[in-house]
Amino acid sequence: MSITQSPRGLQGVTAVNSSICYIDGEQGVLAYRGIDIHELATHSNFEECCYLLWCGRLPNQSELDELKLSLARERKLDPAIVNLLRQAPKQSLPMDVLRTVVSALAFYDPDAKVNDSVANLHKSIRLTSQIAYVIAAYDRIRKGKPVVEPHPKLSHAANFLCQLTGQVPSATAERAFDIALILHADHELNASTFAARVVAATLSDMHSAITAAIGALKGPLHGGANEAVFRILEAIDSGGTHPVDYVKGMLAQKKKIPGFGHRVYRTEDPRATHLLTMSRDLGATSGITKWYEMSRQIEEYVVRERQLNANVDFYSASMYHALGIDVDLFTPVFAVSRISGWTAHVMEQFEDNRLIRPRAEYQGPIYPTPYVLMQQR
Amino acid sequence: MSITQSPRGLQGVTAVNSSICYIDGEQGVLAYRGIDIHELATHSNFEECCYLLWCGRLPNQSELDELKLSLARERKLDPAIVNLLRQAPKQSLPMDVLRTVVSALAFYDPDAKVNDSVANLHKSIRLTSQIAYVIAAYDRIRKGKPVVEPHPKLSHAANFLCQLTGQVPSATAERAFDIALILHADHELNASTFAARVVAATLSDMHSAITAAIGALKGPLHGGANEAVFRILEAIDSGGTHPVDYVKGMLAQKKKIPGFGHRVYRTEDPRATHLLTMSRDLGATSGITKWYEMSRQIEEYVVRERQLNANVDFYSASMYHALGIDVDLFTPVFAVSRISGWTAHVMEQFEDNRLIRPRAEYQGPIYPTPYVLMQQR
Repeated sequence: MSITQSPRGLQGVTAVNSSICYIDGEQGVLAYRGIDIHELATHSNFEECCYLLWCGRLPNQSELDELKLSLARERKLDPAIVNLLRQAPKQSLPMDVLRTVVSALAFYDPDAKVNDSVANLHKSIRLTSQIAYVIAAYDRIRKGKPVVEPHPKLSHAANFLCQLTGQVPSATAERAFDIALILHADHELNASTFAARVVAATLSDMHSAITAAIGALKGPLHGGANEAVFRILEAIDSGGTHPVDYVKGMLAQKKKIPGFGHRVYRTEDPRATHLLTMSRDLGATSGITKWYEMSRQIEEYVVRERQLNANVDFYSASMYHALGIDVDLFTPVFAVSRISGWTAHVMEQFEDNRLIRPRAEYQGPIYPTPYVLMQQR
Repeated sequence: MSITQSPRGLQGVTAVNSSICYIDGEQGVLAYRGIDIHELATHSNFEECCYLLWCGRLPNQSELDELKLSLARERKLDPAIVNLLRQAPKQSLPMDVLRTVVSALAFYDPDAKVNDSVANLHKSIRLTSQIAYVIAAYDRIRKGKPVVEPHPKLSHAANFLCQLTGQVPSATAERAFDIALILHADHELNASTFAARVVAATLSDMHSAITAAIGALKGPLHGGANEAVFRILEAIDSGGTHPVDYVKGMLAQKKKIPGFGHRVYRTEDPRATHLLTMSRDLGATSGITKWYEMSRQIEEYVVRERQLNANVDFYSASMYHALGIDVDLFTPVFAVSRISGWTAHVMEQFEDNRLIRPRAEYQGPIYPTPYVLMQQR
């Protein structure tokens, strides 16, 4: 069997065929099922994007209504899951809690032992509703507040914000969060989606694949980046340094600036401009514009000095903050959206599966290295 | 950026550099750190193989003694973890429980928020001891038996069997299980190890990576195969069919025979011969030879008719059964060993990291597909 040498990190190597997400990194294009992300951000909503990602086309009105009903119906958690959230030690990391709880959701999934396409669509709907519920409930519990019951009539975006904050959000906040959900829903073979597909390709199950994806999303080179961006904004705000000086200092220490550059895009990240607008508008609405302004100054400097563009994580930081989301929930909130793409990819993997099992380029001690008996070592 | 088309499932594509495991699929060679698996199976023990995989060379006596002490010291679980095992619903799948509990171990890991090489070696030792403890305790709890306290003086192999069965194993059983642990410890970029490295490469953490690996191992194309082998042996035994007729029937229905063939080996799986010997010897010792004999008849037929060789999963099925391990624990028991290789690979990934982020070959609707407004659909 021949072995093909590949670029490090499989950069630019195709690992699977997929009909879900189209990216042109040179042109800055992102599209779900062929439809441009700018059109979706302008006209669509998260539930419709779920349908698009899962079923391959836009729904008609009754199909969309039915999916909305299904998502609302699945806004429930087994009491044992809420107990598990209560039992997680105070100092736990939110992504560790999310990973554990999503894994435990398999215990209570009525389709846990079925792996066909019908069961997996049900699991996709269920997990999309449950992950939002889990994160909102977790935040309430750790703050000593009562868990907010889900609202069957609200959109996915509005219900999440309502379960998180205890307040039905304003139309502006709902729409902003809905757009954020659309923008984060899928991004082809990003590391968490790829992890999910590697797991699914052993013909394991949806919960195993999604648990793996959450573990990957936790990493600072992936979903952890928007949290890192806001930590910098906080440090600038509390230290009183000028944003540009702070970033200069980081660059002088050869530190990477989180929220800039992307493995795939060589131009602007098409999602960034929408997040910038929402960060600006939400700041203006609330009267707290400093996070947006700091972000803008940093972006201008980094673009000019390093020719690196802001990516999806950069403006989502100040935008999530403006929505009242705690900084250590930014990465879990990424999962509230990306679950739609992860599940779409897992279903696609199952449809035409092949085990994903590459090789390693061996660089260790020469074979055969003799086994030396203990008394001769 | 250029995109390279790759074979399906990344077959034969190198994804990372590694010094841990050498495989020559044409020659049927497997070696850890350059040392042939046959030498290790003959002379070594599981603890020494852990040292070899984690530290890159064989230990001297005091290094080995220290590692054995550390492994014995880490044979403990937070009471909340035992509670979690008790709370898992009766009908849960053992791999779902293992995945959830290993994820939850992060809550109680003293190094949970540290990701340096010292912390990760500690996590590797801890997880190796804890996974064995978790599986044994889980099996006791679900059978309504008391959890067996770990024994600080026993080897890893003997302690696991003792915690599982409540009896210190015979020297024959201990050695057989120790050899099984050696043989299963690592296998280069198998799907679960690759999943672990994809997760680690986001600079996430050890528990996230290992949780992903457990999810991948669950799949019937990977760790689930030895369970599938034994289910066939059980069906043959209870149905009274001749093993060869049963297999002929499966082949006539175009079913794959689990435990045969391998993505990497084109010759005999070098682990299979040791497992065959142990399956035979343990059968002879116990006086129950039927599982080995059925296996042998199936192997001879499949080799002759299909030119497919038995792999690591085939004889581990009858061998694990002879050790008194329940069939639905075969895959979890695979993890008792493979945790050593998984953790070695995660540490290696962290040492010289690059995000693992391949591309998908897009085959969906042409871009741009217009967004059609709802009223026009």
